[in-house]
Amino acid sequence: MADLGFIGLGIMGKPMAGHLVAADHRVHVYNRSPKPFQELSAKGAVPCRSSREVAEKSDVIFIIVSDTPDVEAVMFGAAGLYDGLRPGSVVVDMSTISPAATREFAKRLAAKKIDMLDAPVSGGQVGAEQATLSIMVGGEAAVFERVRPYFDLMGKNIIHIGANGAGQTCKLSNQIVVAVTIEAVSEALVFASKAGVDPSKVRQALLGGFAQSRILEIHGKRMIDRNFTPGFKIGLQQKDLNLVLQTARAMGVSLPATAVTQELYNAVSGQGNSDLESAALVFAIEKLAGHTIGE
Amino acid sequence: MADLGFIGLGIMGKPMAGHLVAADHRVHVYNRSPKPFQELSAKGAVPCRSSREVAEKSDVIFIIVSDTPDVEAVMFGAAGLYDGLRPGSVVVDMSTISPAATREFAKRLAAKKIDMLDAPVSGGQVGAEQATLSIMVGGEAAVFERVRPYFDLMGKNIIHIGANGAGQTCKLSNQIVVAVTIEAVSEALVFASKAGVDPSKVRQALLGGFAQSRILEIHGKRMIDRNFTPGFKIGLQQKDLNLVLQTARAMGVSLPATAVTQELYNAVSGQGNSDLESAALVFAIEKLAGHTIGE
Repeated sequence: MADLGFIGLGIMGKPMAGHLVAADHRVHVYNRSPKPFQELSAKGAVPCRSSREVAEKSDVIFIIVSDTPDVEAVMFGAAGLYDGLRPGSVVVDMSTISPAATREFAKRLAAKKIDMLDAPVSGGQVGAEQATLSIMVGGEAAVFERVRPYFDLMGKNIIHIGANGAGQTCKLSNQIVVAVTIEAVSEALVFASKAGVDPSKVRQALLGGFAQSRILEIHGKRMIDRNFTPGFKIGLQQKDLNLVLQTARAMGVSLPATAVTQELYNAVSGQGNSDLESAALVFAIEKLAGHTIGE
Repeated sequence: MADLGFIGLGIMGKPMAGHLVAADHRVHVYNRSPKPFQELSAKGAVPCRSSREVAEKSDVIFIIVSDTPDVEAVMFGAAGLYDGLRPGSVVVDMSTISPAATREFAKRLAAKKIDMLDAPVSGGQVGAEQATLSIMVGGEAAVFERVRPYFDLMGKNIIHIGANGAGQTCKLSNQIVVAVTIEAVSEALVFASKAGVDPSKVRQALLGGFAQSRILEIHGKRMIDRNFTPGFKIGLQQKDLNLVLQTARAMGVSLPATAVTQELYNAVSGQGNSDLESAALVFAIEKLAGHTIGE
């Protein structure tokens, strides 16, 4: 039984922390809003009043919050981790944030003999609840091995990608493929449907061949069924693609299809849909075609 | 044992006709260049001197040639099928061509009491050789059922999509997804590699999650291994995307990511690479980034 910390008890963090509690670890938890405390506390988690208090009591601290500034506030803000951390502890950031900021945070923590891993996840709420997340890890190999038993409680496909920031870079690569494949499926299904062809038969045929993808399987079905309950919200997809495009620009990498996809997300979001599931990207192609799938 | 016809004995047609011969059907074959005759004749195929001669001797005639004008020449050109076809025969076009032209060809054949199916395939040379092609069929259900036993000898995932032209529309939808997903994987792997992250670890991590696709699995590996032996040539991919974009324009459907992908294929092809495997689309993203994967 280890003393663990968990900060950020949202849609993802709450079930993830729950798996650590269920494995009989002492888990010190903190969240900006108090609601998720009660449920986890009833199961044995130890509620704290600040990130600093979590740091003071824990050897390994997991964070999963929304964006780069949120992680910075948890780590280095008022009553943040930095003031409470003991040398030899490990901070594991499972949020999806900037790879460049991640490397800077790791340096600042290293000055205090604190190790850091970036360990963003893929698999969404269902993956978090069923402990089947993919976890993409950046940081030193020895630190990865130390934290691995806890990752095993939260995920299935757990890969050490490289040095600090490599986990975030991998996650952003993941978001490129996911978003552009959603765009590919949107274009294909609207094309077929406007031509008068049954999109569900097209999906079925394509799943058996070279066009197969998990996105076609899951999001293609959502588009046909008109089911846009998240899942993963457009607003978060936009945040992630913004990180991708900023990081690419800083490196001098041009991503034409990702950029087009982000612009189409901007259109869909701008029409009041930012809380819909990311598969609603298809609205943009439907608007342009003057045709709704299955119409 | 049926009297079948097979026109077009290229990379795809030769093994496909071979499966029909191997099942002890009498297969009457014709190809513009004489070379593929000899091998198939030695196995029992009956060589013919024209498409018309094939038509005169066959009840069901399969065609797989390159493009719309080639199919038109086989069907309605000098010494073409049309002059030799007997009422009650079926013409099955397995080429990838225009859905609109397909509907027109079907009408012209129907005037002579000839049935037609459009039945384009996905799965490439390997699928043709191993009889594992996906076959997407347009035409009347009763005609589909009549031809199905022969499709079963050539493919695995055989789906009746709808009326004449629906098979071609489905195949073009397939090409949208395939091409744009190749672009997605190209952008993701160049992004990761230029950031200094091992692209093969990124591929491995992404295959375990929501970004999974057959394109990432097969073409992602080709990009990392620098293996651009076709497979499916860029020149054919451009031909298919041209069909997609022409058909979309005629319907008033806008396909932003497909259009961007075709433009990038134009760049790669224009630099002398049209005979390379379609995964070499990654060259365009590498040129723009000034970085080659794995460099």
